[in-house]
Formats: sequence, structure tokens, C-alpha cells
Amino acid sequence: MSQSFIPTLREVPSDAVIVSHQLMFRAGLLRRLGNGLFAYLPLGLRSFRKVEKIVREEMDAAGSLEIKPTVVVPGDLWKESGRWTGMGDGLLKVKNRVDMDLVVSPTAEEAFTAIVRDELSSYRQLPLSLYQINTKYRDEIRPRYGVMRGREFVMKDAYSYHADEECLDKTYQAMGRAYRRIFKRCGLTVIPVKADSGAMGGSGSEEFMVESNIGDNTLLLCKSCDYAANVEKAECKPDYSPRPSIELAKKAASPTPPMEKIDTPNIKTINELCSFLKMEAASFIKTIIYKAINTEKENGEILPESFHAILIRGDLDINEVKLTAFLKCADVELASEAEIERLTGAPLGFSGPVGLKNISIIADFSVTGISDGVTGALEKDRHYKHAAYGRDFEADKITDLRTVKAGDHCPVCGGELYEKKGNELGHIFKLGDKYTVSMNVTYLDENGKSHIPIMGCYGVGLDITLASVIEEHHDDDGIIWPVSIAPYHVIVIPIKYEGLVKEAADKVKEELESNGIEVLLDDRDERPGVKFKDADLIGIPYRIVIGDKNLNQDNPKVEVKKRTEKENHLMDIKEAVNEISGKINQELMNNLV
Amino acid sequence: MSQSFIPTLREVPSDAVIVSHQLMFRAGLLRRLGNGLFAYLPLGLRSFRKVEKIVREEMDAAGSLEIKPTVVVPGDLWKESGRWTGMGDGLLKVKNRVDMDLVVSPTAEEAFTAIVRDELSSYRQLPLSLYQINTKYRDEIRPRYGVMRGREFVMKDAYSYHADEECLDKTYQAMGRAYRRIFKRCGLTVIPVKADSGAMGGSGSEEFMVESNIGDNTLLLCKSCDYAANVEKAECKPDYSPRPSIELAKKAASPTPPMEKIDTPNIKTINELCSFLKMEAASFIKTIIYKAINTEKENGEILPESFHAILIRGDLDINEVKLTAFLKCADVELASEAEIERLTGAPLGFSGPVGLKNISIIADFSVTGISDGVTGALEKDRHYKHAAYGRDFEADKITDLRTVKAGDHCPVCGGELYEKKGNELGHIFKLGDKYTVSMNVTYLDENGKSHIPIMGCYGVGLDITLASVIEEHHDDDGIIWPVSIAPYHVIVIPIKYEGLVKEAADKVKEELESNGIEVLLDDRDERPGVKFKDADLIGIPYRIVIGDKNLNQDNPKVEVKKRTEKENHLMDIKEAVNEISGKINQELMNNLV
Repeated sequence: MSQSFIPTLREVPSDAVIVSHQLMFRAGLLRRLGNGLFAYLPLGLRSFRKVEKIVREEMDAAGSLEIKPTVVVPGDLWKESGRWTGMGDGLLKVKNRVDMDLVVSPTAEEAFTAIVRDELSSYRQLPLSLYQINTKYRDEIRPRYGVMRGREFVMKDAYSYHADEECLDKTYQAMGRAYRRIFKRCGLTVIPVKADSGAMGGSGSEEFMVESNIGDNTLLLCKSCDYAANVEKAECKPDYSPRPSIELAKKAASPTPPMEKIDTPNIKTINELCSFLKMEAASFIKTIIYKAINTEKENGEILPESFHAILIRGDLDINEVKLTAFLKCADVELASEAEIERLTGAPLGFSGPVGLKNISIIADFSVTGISDGVTGALEKDRHYKHAAYGRDFEADKITDLRTVKAGDHCPVCGGELYEKKGNELGHIFKLGDKYTVSMNVTYLDENGKSHIPIMGCYGVGLDITLASVIEEHHDDDGIIWPVSIAPYHVIVIPIKYEGLVKEAADKVKEELESNGIEVLLDDRDERPGVKFKDADLIGIPYRIVIGDKNLNQDNPKVEVKKRTEKENHLMDIKEAVNEISGKINQELMNNLV
Repeated sequence: MSQSFIPTLREVPSDAVIVSHQLMFRAGLLRRLGNGLFAYLPLGLRSFRKVEKIVREEMDAAGSLEIKPTVVVPGDLWKESGRWTGMGDGLLKVKNRVDMDLVVSPTAEEAFTAIVRDELSSYRQLPLSLYQINTKYRDEIRPRYGVMRGREFVMKDAYSYHADEECLDKTYQAMGRAYRRIFKRCGLTVIPVKADSGAMGGSGSEEFMVESNIGDNTLLLCKSCDYAANVEKAECKPDYSPRPSIELAKKAASPTPPMEKIDTPNIKTINELCSFLKMEAASFIKTIIYKAINTEKENGEILPESFHAILIRGDLDINEVKLTAFLKCADVELASEAEIERLTGAPLGFSGPVGLKNISIIADFSVTGISDGVTGALEKDRHYKHAAYGRDFEADKITDLRTVKAGDHCPVCGGELYEKKGNELGHIFKLGDKYTVSMNVTYLDENGKSHIPIMGCYGVGLDITLASVIEEHHDDDGIIWPVSIAPYHVIVIPIKYEGLVKEAADKVKEELESNGIEVLLDDRDERPGVKFKDADLIGIPYRIVIGDKNLNQDNPKVEVKKRTEKENHLMDIKEAVNEISGKINQELMNNLV
């Protein structure tokens, strides 16, 4: 320890608000170079390399081949794919001295596809799965939480190329299994989150999340089955859920009176309507005018702008990710007040489907169950009562557009959904032909006919994985490393590193090392209390304390303690070495299976 | 092989002019992403990782601690050190979305020193030696020769911090030994080149060169001892060497006639003078007026501009690196014609030391031996004959300023020097306090007094090292890898991968692998000739060919061939496995010693 560089801290760094960030600094794993830029110190790097090794082993086992493109890549490749402009400000672009556009890679679809394009000629070369474990840069506007959301990070990113969907699916499934193994071997509890329920023809995307109260993803999980989805894509049973009140149920059962136009002076929002009419939100039909940007038409042409009236039940929210996907456009945004007035003839707040013309009407499933609702009357300060879907209005298209919430019902089993915050550690994704088309990749089939291959991509963030391990495995005293990625397996603490105690400590270290165990010897001239506190802080799984008292006996003993346990066990040196070596090697073996 | 991605080429890529570049492409080790930007494919990466492992092992053994700073670092650190502007256009600078200046690191003195500055408090923490093996970017204006001079590359860079020179020297020497071991283990013949002869108080810099006809360094080596120096810093015995002609020797022995002014109409260069006067170049005293930029004065002040008349024998050239170091300035440049006229009173071509005033005169050692020379007379179209050093003119300072050439005499032993072209693979360097002063690093000594530590820095280029191995180890058919960094140790070639041959090939592979040998099985459906050619091209050290003919016998045999040898040896499978495993494991063991 005196020969290493492990600057532990008693104080919590002021800018560190989450446990992993605090502990990575306090345990001397990490230091800050600049905003969102961190340096791993020796202890942190040891654990980082173990995560890297696990990832590499599992990728190799899954048949992916490691390559190493550059971190800085030609901007021309990004212009080909369209991401030079499409990626937004998070992309770090540079112009070099000879006026060449460069990108500091945030991902590497372009680089991999450029390599494959040049080498791919025959179907016999497919499938091809390549990966790298390499530095990435994403220009986070507000980096925080240490390496959880830093600017530079290391990612394992893999890209696979296939002749058909079936082959892609096979690799995709293998990657999913590899990812489950990676996180399990790191000691992490992950929540695999599918993009869809699988009911609609196979999932094309799966995110591997860990629960985190600072997570930037909201997850919906089912209490009854293993359905889990990102709120951005979560589905639910297209029924009334949460169940409408008894009052509403009664109303639905009785025949609906004819529509009636009512005065609603200056009442524009659902909340205002609820108070004004003394009705619950589920009684309203929200009508929101959206502008779709760059919609892909069936013939492949791009429509720069189009407008749609989106209907949803008043107590629900529209999920713009779902809407964007449904409309097959690049983005959606709310129409301006002027556009609303032009399209509906009424000001903002009074849109409604009854009598609405010249604009496509798209309804969420929830609207089809409304037999007696309130909705805007397309006139200033006027609404309709008793509007019934199917009788008074209809939609051009009906689909699932709602933002699913806790209490909604699972699309798979109907069970109740609940929410968690999550951080994404990994992602597997069927990319299709987005890059192979734009970058012009082809191969010849058995008959010499040219085809475009399809792609999958698969990423794991190594830094965030390591930080998540600390989030899951710590206590008030410090980190509690799983054996698989602990920087060292055993810390040997001589009470005073001299004389017989030194001899015994050196011997224990040497014998453990000859059994393949990684040992950190705290040979520092520090008080025992300081050494114990540091040992707990840096979280080495096993601790062996060697002191005069227990050594100067007929039966010399050492104190053995697991980081997870409170009590010491007095053991012979030989017994301690054998038992600890046995346990650690067993754990390391199990980690490989 | 069918499951890997080893796209070999029969053709030499048109832009590849050196062997390593050609072979790295032809053997499928490397592909191009952009100008000066290359991707390692699986086979190349395997060898690259082995070089990396050797470097890491030797750095660890030398007591250096591995850390991992970011590749992209804050420009502010570079502003502190002064290299933000001092580094020139090779430094890739970026401004990010929040207007933060960033640098894509070409080296990491700043990042390491920033980390050490924050943690260093006591002399007890010194010495501290840290390293990284990480991506670097240098914006080469004309990248070429593949990874020999690429823009992005991987470098091992180490930085050490010390309380005193003695401690620095100890680490510096240990690094020198580690570097010798690294290159030896990679199978490379390196020429360690000291910056000075060691005669003037210990070397502060050593470059590790490999001979290369495209090398950008000219080396002077001694035929009699192990003196080797970069021409930029090479010294030589301050005597007449190459020896002057007999004519000159005679002249030197007889008394010199008095000086005489002669007409030399429009004769300005030494060459013109030689023809005009029918004398040899060594008879002339060249006088060149230099402008020194930003000279550091003894009181630490900087003098922006000063002028010096530099004298050197007519057959020799001034080494501007030596001159810059001697003058303690940032740079030197030739004075303009106007400046020459103003300072000497005569136009360009007629400068000379006789009667020269108001400007410092600095002479190379060679001038002091001239007792009968020709030199400019400080008048247009006029020169002096019979000028003698000491009698007719003197210098303010005398030093070694000449560019040493083949034929000069070794400064250590006096032996004859000869030239080689070389490429630098590594460099160790005593930095002193350049960065610790500018970045304000201090520690407290035993008495609580504050001091500034001194630094060493130590770099090895991994890509150029790998390419140099290929430059040194190849033949017309391809690469000949040393076992230590071969991507695989053995290639097993079944003539046709089916039936008994397949069984035998699988068995050989399995048994070799159980002995720790790395095996590439050429299971492709290709003609034997293609497989043999590829095996030679990718340069695997041992080849085992398995065919029906030798297998279908009472004593089934396989053909064993070393890549370095021409003939096959027929062996039992068992014998082949044992002998090859034994040899390879022996070589790998030897490599560690």
C-alpha cells in the first residue's frame, strides 16, 4: 500500500451527491480532471479492468470478434450516415490543421460499417459480429454523478451484419444472454427492459437497467409477470385503467343523451374543466394538435410537415415517442396557437373531434371507450357534453399512444404496473438497414444477386457498470466489492509492520499469492484504526489482521473478517490461507460458469 | 479461420510504400478509416495486445503504477503549462458546446501533473511513478507509412516525480532497463541513443531507435564503441576530422603569411569560393549571422531578439539544435539580408570575424584550428586570405556547434562515426521542473519546508513498435512473427477439413490448446496453395499440415514446418504436439526472463 497510490479521503467531496461518486473519490479510485472528465487511479483501474475482462470474455464467447478502430474518425463517414447533422450538439466535432472534419466517437456504427463495406462481398462472410472496447466521448451539457454521466467514458460496442432477420435475431438473442451474464458476473441486479411486449412480433430492442433514484429512465414493471418497459415505450392493456369511478361506470351503462353545446368561458385546460363542470378528468376527450416533422411516406418520400389531431382520455398523457414512431416521422411538436386556429377554426383550448375536418384524427385506445364525454366544440368558450365515440365522432386511426403510469395494467398478463427509476447500463438493438443503406453496403447471394445486409448494435457502458456495482454494494463504511471485480481479494493488515508481525504478514501475502489470490498489504506506518477504516472504505472482500497479541501464543493466530460480516474469526495462519484461498477461488470459478 | 475476420490480400495497397504497411494490410491486420487513421482487425489486435501486455508487465516490474486519465482533457491544464500555444499546430484543440477548451491528448504531462499536484503533500509520497497505456492524437500534417506515422496511436507514457536528482536518476535508469527488456521481448534490435556522450555529467535523455531507411532521424554511431547519437545532438572530438588534406596539414605547419585582402567579385558561397580560389572548403571560415529568439538571460528575463555571428570551418555545417541549446533561446533563425548589412556593414556573403564589432562572435571548435584561412572582409566583393585564429581574430565563446557527419570521430573513444537512418520507438527523458514549476506543484520536506519536485517522462509508441517488428521480421512471402507477439503460435492446415483429416486437425488443435498454445485452424474451403500462402503471409511461427496421404498410413504423420525454415518435418501427431508445445512454452518462458 505504501508503494501504490491510494489517496483515501475522510471527507465527502462537495460535488458528489450520489454514493458511487462519493465512494469512488473517498476510496481513491478516481480523481477529477475537468467537468465530466475523470482519471482512474490504480485501485479504480484494477476494478475497471476486471469489468473489461468480463465483458471481453462474454463477447468472445458470444462469437463476436474484437477490433480496434480509432477514437477520432473522419467526419466524412458521419456525413454519409447522416449523423454529422442528425446527432445534435452532443457530437464533438473538430476540424484539424488540414481542414479535415473529424469526430471524437460517441458510438461507432459508421466506422464499423465502413470497414465491413470494404471487405464484404459474399453471403458466405455473413453473419459477421465485431466489437470494440474503446474510449467514447459524448458532450454532455451537464455532466454529473461522477462517471455515471461523464463526458468521456469507455463503452463496449458491438455491431453485427446479417443476410436476414432470422440470423440477426439469433445474434441478438445471444447478445441478450451475454449481457445477462456480464451483469450477473459483476454482481449486478439488472432489469432487462424490452421495447415492446413481444406480442407484436418480437422485440427489436432491450435495455439493461439498474434501479437508481437518480436514474434518468422511468420504468414500468408488472407485479405479476416479468414485463418491464421504459416509459417511453411502455404499453398497457387498452382498457379503462385505472378503472373509472363507479359514477363513470354507471354513466357508461346507461344510454348517452344527445350531444349538447355548453358555455365554458375562458376554460381551456382539463383541470379548469374538471372544477368548472365538477367532473373527473377521465370524462374528457383531450384533443391535441401536433405537427409531425419529416414524415416518411410509403413511397419513401419525406413530407417536411404535416398536422394531426391526437385524441386521448383526459386523465392520460400522450407519449410522444410512441406518436413519433406511429407517424413514422423524425420528430413531433405541439402546433402553435396560430396553426391551431387555422386548422380547427377555434383558438387553443377548444379543439375537439366533433366536426373536425381537413386534418387526420388519431385516437388513443382509451378514447374508443368514451360513450359520454366532454370535448372542445371548435368554438371559442364552447364545449360539447355527451359526446360518444362512434356516434358523434370517429378517428381515422386508433392506436396505443398513452404514457403508461403506475396502476395501469400489464399488456402481457393484465397485472398491475408499478414504476421505478432506472439507469441504462446496456442496450441491444436491431438496427435494420439504416446504416447499410445510407453507407451503401452490399453483398452477393448464392445466385450472384446483390443485397443490403441488416444490422444489430449492442452497447455496454463500462464506467457506469462499475459505478452501479458500488451503488448496489456498499454500506456506511464504504464499498463492499463482489470478489469478481474487487481490486484485490484480500487486504492484510499488520498492526505494526515490523519484527515477527512483518514476517507473518509477508508470509500470509506470499502464500495467498501462490494460490492465485490478489493481496494488498497495508504496510503503512499508520494507526490500526486508520488502516481498518481504509480497508472498509476501499471494500476488499477479506481482511486479515496480524498483531503481536494473537501471534505470541503457543498457537499463533490471525484475525479473519469478511467485509460483509461484523465479527472476526481467529484462525491459524495456515487455516486462514487455505480457507480464504478456497472460498475466493470457488467464487471466481462460479463466476465463470 | 472461417469464424474470424482475416481479409488477406494478394495485391499490395497502392499507398503502402514500406514493408510493414504493406504486410499489415495484406495479412489483414489493419484497415484504413481515414488519412492517418487505422483500425486493427482481429489478427492485428491480438499482436497489438501482446505488445501492450509486455509493456505493462515491464512497467509494473519497474514499479510504475498504471492509471487511466481521459484522452480528451481540459485545455485549461495546457494553458497552465504553456503548451496550449507552445505545442504548435500538431495539437488538436476543440471547443465543446459549452465553450470549454479541450485537447485530444498527444502526451499527458499536464494531466498527470494535475493529478499529482492535488494529492502530493509530503516528501514521504515521493518518488511517485505513474503510467498509462492510452490513445493519443497528434495532427500529423502528412501522415504516412501506415501506423508508423499515423494521427491516432497508442502510447505508453509514464511520468515520475522526485525530491532530488539522485532519485530521478534511479527511476530513469530503471526505465532504461525496462525499455531494453520491452524491445528485446518484442524481438526488436534497438539502438539506444543518448542525447550526449555522458562525458558532461550524465545523460538526461535516451532515445530507443530502430534502423529504418524511412526513418526520420539520422543517427551517428561509433565503429569502435557503443556511442550512438541523434544527429541533432551528436558530438565529436573537437579536432580536424575528417583529417584535412596533406596540403592543408603542410600549410598549418609553416608560418602563416600576413593577411591579405583579395577581390572576389560576386562570389558569395563557399562553393563559389572553392572554385574561384581553387582551394578546399576546409580552408574557409564560414561566418553566419543568426537571430536568437526569446533568449533566457541569467536573471531569468527573456530577451526577445539578439544577434550572433557564428563561425565554423567551411566544410562543416552548423547544428541549429546545438546552437539553440548553447544560446539558451527558444529558437534561432538566419538573419535577413537587411539585418546582416546593418550589423556587419557588408552585404550577405561577405561576413567575417576580422574587425567585426558590436555583435557576439561564437566559434565552433573547428575554427580554432585554422591558422591560414579565407573569410569575408566585411566589404562587398572582398575576402581576406591568410586569416589565423588567435592572431587576426578571436571568438567571444568557443563551443561544439557542428553537425556531426559520418567520418567524424567519436567523442568517447575517438573511433570513426558512421550514419544510419532510424525511427524512434521510445524515449526516456529527465524533464526537471518545467511542469512542476509552471503548474505549481509542491511538497513539504521533513522540516516542513516547501519544495518543487522534479520529473522524468518516458514514452513508448505501441503501434510503431508493432510495425517495426514486421520491418525487422519478414521475407518475400510475408511476416515472420517472433513467438512472443505472434497473433497465434501455430496454424493448423487440414488439406480438406472433412472426415479423418478434420478429426485429426481438431484433435491437434485441442491438444495444443490444452498445453496453453494458441492455435489458428484454417478450416476454410480453399485450395491448399491458398492456405499455404496465407499462412506464410500472416506469419504464424509454426505450421502443421494435415492431409489424407500422410494420415492413411500405419504410422499416421503430419507435416510440421517453422515459418523461418524451408523444409517440412514428418512427425507423429503426438510427437508434433509435444515438440511444438515444448518449444513454444520454452520461448515464452525465456521471454519473461
